[in-house]
Amino acid sequence: MFELKHRDGLARICRLETAHGTLETPVLLPVINPNQLLISPREMKETFKIEGLITNSYIIFKNDHLREPALEKGVHELIGFEGTIMTDSGTFQSHVYGDIELDPIEIVKFQRDIGSDIGTILDVFSEPDDSHSKVKSDLEETLKRAKASVEHKGDMLLAGTVQGGIFEDLRAESASRISELACDVVPIGGVVPLMESQRYADLVNVVMTSKQNLDPSKPVHLFGCGHPMMFSLAALMGCDIFDSSAYAKFAKNGRMLFVDGTRFLAEMKKLPCECPVCYGRTPDELTAHPEKENLLAMHNLHVSFAEIKRIKQAIHEGRLWEMVEQRCRGHPKLLDGLKQLRKYKDFMEKHEPLSRELAFLHTSPDSYHRPVVARYQKRLAERFETSKTAHIVFPESHKPYHRHYKDKMSQLPENAQFWVDSYFGPAPMELDEMYPIAQSVIPEHPDAETIDAISAFSKSFFDSLGGDVKHYSDDMKTGKPAHHGDIAPERVRAVADMQFGKGASAFLFNGNLEFIKSKKTGKIRNVIVDGEHVLSMRASTGFFTLKPSGAERLHAAFPTPKLRVITQNEPAEFNREGKNVFAKFVLDADPEIVPGDEVLIVNESDELAAIGRALLTRDEMLAFKTGIAVKVREGIQARPE
Amino acid sequence: MFELKHRDGLARICRLETAHGTLETPVLLPVINPNQLLISPREMKETFKIEGLITNSYIIFKNDHLREPALEKGVHELIGFEGTIMTDSGTFQSHVYGDIELDPIEIVKFQRDIGSDIGTILDVFSEPDDSHSKVKSDLEETLKRAKASVEHKGDMLLAGTVQGGIFEDLRAESASRISELACDVVPIGGVVPLMESQRYADLVNVVMTSKQNLDPSKPVHLFGCGHPMMFSLAALMGCDIFDSSAYAKFAKNGRMLFVDGTRFLAEMKKLPCECPVCYGRTPDELTAHPEKENLLAMHNLHVSFAEIKRIKQAIHEGRLWEMVEQRCRGHPKLLDGLKQLRKYKDFMEKHEPLSRELAFLHTSPDSYHRPVVARYQKRLAERFETSKTAHIVFPESHKPYHRHYKDKMSQLPENAQFWVDSYFGPAPMELDEMYPIAQSVIPEHPDAETIDAISAFSKSFFDSLGGDVKHYSDDMKTGKPAHHGDIAPERVRAVADMQFGKGASAFLFNGNLEFIKSKKTGKIRNVIVDGEHVLSMRASTGFFTLKPSGAERLHAAFPTPKLRVITQNEPAEFNREGKNVFAKFVLDADPEIVPGDEVLIVNESDELAAIGRALLTRDEMLAFKTGIAVKVREGIQARPE
Repeated sequence: MFELKHRDGLARICRLETAHGTLETPVLLPVINPNQLLISPREMKETFKIEGLITNSYIIFKNDHLREPALEKGVHELIGFEGTIMTDSGTFQSHVYGDIELDPIEIVKFQRDIGSDIGTILDVFSEPDDSHSKVKSDLEETLKRAKASVEHKGDMLLAGTVQGGIFEDLRAESASRISELACDVVPIGGVVPLMESQRYADLVNVVMTSKQNLDPSKPVHLFGCGHPMMFSLAALMGCDIFDSSAYAKFAKNGRMLFVDGTRFLAEMKKLPCECPVCYGRTPDELTAHPEKENLLAMHNLHVSFAEIKRIKQAIHEGRLWEMVEQRCRGHPKLLDGLKQLRKYKDFMEKHEPLSRELAFLHTSPDSYHRPVVARYQKRLAERFETSKTAHIVFPESHKPYHRHYKDKMSQLPENAQFWVDSYFGPAPMELDEMYPIAQSVIPEHPDAETIDAISAFSKSFFDSLGGDVKHYSDDMKTGKPAHHGDIAPERVRAVADMQFGKGASAFLFNGNLEFIKSKKTGKIRNVIVDGEHVLSMRASTGFFTLKPSGAERLHAAFPTPKLRVITQNEPAEFNREGKNVFAKFVLDADPEIVPGDEVLIVNESDELAAIGRALLTRDEMLAFKTGIAVKVREGIQARPE
Repeated sequence: MFELKHRDGLARICRLETAHGTLETPVLLPVINPNQLLISPREMKETFKIEGLITNSYIIFKNDHLREPALEKGVHELIGFEGTIMTDSGTFQSHVYGDIELDPIEIVKFQRDIGSDIGTILDVFSEPDDSHSKVKSDLEETLKRAKASVEHKGDMLLAGTVQGGIFEDLRAESASRISELACDVVPIGGVVPLMESQRYADLVNVVMTSKQNLDPSKPVHLFGCGHPMMFSLAALMGCDIFDSSAYAKFAKNGRMLFVDGTRFLAEMKKLPCECPVCYGRTPDELTAHPEKENLLAMHNLHVSFAEIKRIKQAIHEGRLWEMVEQRCRGHPKLLDGLKQLRKYKDFMEKHEPLSRELAFLHTSPDSYHRPVVARYQKRLAERFETSKTAHIVFPESHKPYHRHYKDKMSQLPENAQFWVDSYFGPAPMELDEMYPIAQSVIPEHPDAETIDAISAFSKSFFDSLGGDVKHYSDDMKTGKPAHHGDIAPERVRAVADMQFGKGASAFLFNGNLEFIKSKKTGKIRNVIVDGEHVLSMRASTGFFTLKPSGAERLHAAFPTPKLRVITQNEPAEFNREGKNVFAKFVLDADPEIVPGDEVLIVNESDELAAIGRALLTRDEMLAFKTGIAVKVREGIQARPE
């Protein structure tokens, strides 16, 4: 029903099945006012291939000429759309117009009865300025209604909204308690006032405290988020569903949406956009057009849907962070939002994919705060073996050892460990092909904030090392490292420890070590121990893929659940034949697994059944009911007794 | 023939008239290969309303089946395009394929004879790696050819290329010597290798040293700049013409241009774009399309032309700096280019418009290095009167005095000068409504580099002030300033000095001062001295507009050429009637005038003829042969003797 396919940051490309089709998230549902069809669902379907839309059951309910046909023929026929229809409950209308007559259970039953695919509870909207006690009591009421609503949802999917104002404790409570109910979609509500007043730092707090406490297997809807300048940041935080009434509202008063903000048509000297509304026209022609409002709405939808596609492409490329860093330059308050996100780095890091095929692009002081940088530094401190007593540190460079050090190096101790003060912190020579160290493009002159942060981390790291630490200055950039022999053994040990955990290398490479290298690049391809192929190294990322023999060594080395995904005995037999691990069969897993990690698939008796690449974290594996948890690369047959 | 209409940074929206129409710069000329028409000029005209294109006279010259018809019917009929056609000379082909047979004068004559609107000299292409002496001798040969070519251009406009490799002295020499010749367009050549290897910092040096030494009235063509990710930075540096063969070349090998880079169609999971090629299609559909190459080329053109329109809109809005700061986040090496631009801040500042209607948006550490910040700080040090002996400095805030200070303030000296450590440096209370102080949106938490830069300037400024400087700390944010009386007199004095020069206020306001204020906002509208309306204050920028009485006071106060634009006697009589000042009549002007400045228009005898707003700098007024130098607001009749 809800299945994760691809990811980057907390963003996820998922499939959400409903009675009328499948939504691929992140998805934008245009809002259709059943009373005023500015652009018909048919036209939206034809032009934008929309999979779903959202309409307001409250308006249908309140209007006799809509209510009766809706009950009779269903909302799909009423609206003229055969795809997924989500309905809103009138929360915002009740809040703004104070309609206290509306029965919260009746409106849920009504949504069910008109055949809505995703109905919404009538939650209580809290304003950012409301007091803690007011918000708390709103919240209790919302949860009470949600609990009662679940009883009446029938076959309809039900959206149960997170409220809690701007209070982190209440958002957390709301999110975790709503997760316990049988809701199918979780909107984050009460955020429109924050977006309207550009309180993006508060918005980030609200979304992130909610996300941290939500069941990860539920699609998250950011209610009222319809401006394309917000989409990428919201997606990065793990919001799956957006709704846009903005396209129509802004069109109504002559405004055009762009990914960097909003402009009045009246102020445009050019129509700076590729879309079919804009590309052949001047602002004057558009202004004079009899269908002006409709065309503006079409432009707004073009820009909005294209942005959703850009986000999806960025998720596939693993470049969503870069995209968000660009987008957040559309407004200084969005930058405050992005900066606020640093507070949630630990949570982000747990979900951040291990690596990607494309280079890490440094684009701003925010780049250094991406989770992969934090992960590298954390693992370096926790997992990397620094046994040598002499440490030779070369000046900052993002491509360690591509610059050449020579003469003076020959006087250095033989067993010295060589480092470069890289953009990601100190990088030992052995890790200089591992993502993100080598796979990065850094300006020649990063900003001072970044340089200071790198220096501070580097200093504290070397201070903690002890031993003899010798820094070389910039004027040695033309030199060459003394250690130009084959460092393949050191390299595989270092990468194995960083990837699988401290001490992994001692078990993996305990024996006679051989390497098969690429004839073209000289890079390590396969690692052979005592004649057995234990690991392969991926040229693009410098990380290992496991072979059965390597998996067995790690399995013997570390006690459960380290590196493991534990699955039920029966499906484990299918994994032995190379079939993927489905989330619904997973009993437990190593909480340190990140997406993209190489993992050991074991059965209930901790017998090795397969090796593969994790798509989900442990919490996600346990929460998701559909979809693949681990892509199996190779099954491992049971050992004969 | 070449006339400046709007500007921002060094970017300019100009009209360039040719024999076949008018180009509005910044303009992109798609390259048409006369041998292979991937997209016909007719289709380009219909779809993109192109005003001009560029084709290669060398290819036409070398191919019998093209040469003869071209000579007979003209290049316009040959290509099938009735707009402006620019021709290239084969420099790049000669350089790459080493065709030394080509006669540099013959190819110019040929371009003239086939009716090219803008022909190009056969310059000598220097590579970035060429030695200084090699480049110098290439340069001499190029200049020799340019000089000879001018003799043969006939009615054709002639483009004389700036070369000089990466040597700043040679670029400067090349630019200033080519400016002395009767060339009509100045391409900056030899830059394709820099763009291909992403040496954007070098590119910025090359363009800026050229620009600083070029005749400002000549349109500048950045030869070979066809990637939309580069356009905005190039435009900001004052490049007016771009040419794109990239749209076709990239399409040929399956690549799509985007404003943030290039992607292979084969790697696309979505088509993340609003253009008509992309919006209804999936990557698979596009890949399978029989017209794939053509469609990719169309996409590339859509993106390219839309970016040009975005740049023009940004110039109109005064937001090109913001746009460039966003675009340069597409690649770390572009960031190096942007950072390199700081080196040319003085030159940029001379051309930067005085103010704009929209707020200054801080979007990155680069924002602090925009010329308006430098201008504010420079004028504060040079022009602002700091006569008080006590200086009270409130904590950093971009909206001075919107935060309230109270209690402790009552103990402060009556005659203290109140400052806020603003984003732009110390801001006295009197300037808190002047652009960019009040018209700015700053993040709550700017990056550390910016904060350090602000603090350093602030410290040095207050160190230089002397007197008693007292800083208040952040915990006073809830206080309120003691000085809540009417500061209108101090305000107008401070703004007048900042705008017109140190001491201006003493002359302007020498008399009985009255104010007419907005009933709605309480802001100063008109300043009356001894019953005469001397100045009005623009609510949006906090700068003054001059009234005749104010102009007379300034005229009497400062000797020529201060604040003046000196025009010929005869046209000055037209200015007295309110007609604009044309550049061709300007004899001299104050070198400190920046675009947007209020100026005094005087005749050859320094008699005041009008007041108006400058569109050009002094050097531009003297160089341009067409167009308006000053928009006259009010003519001033000659005083009776």
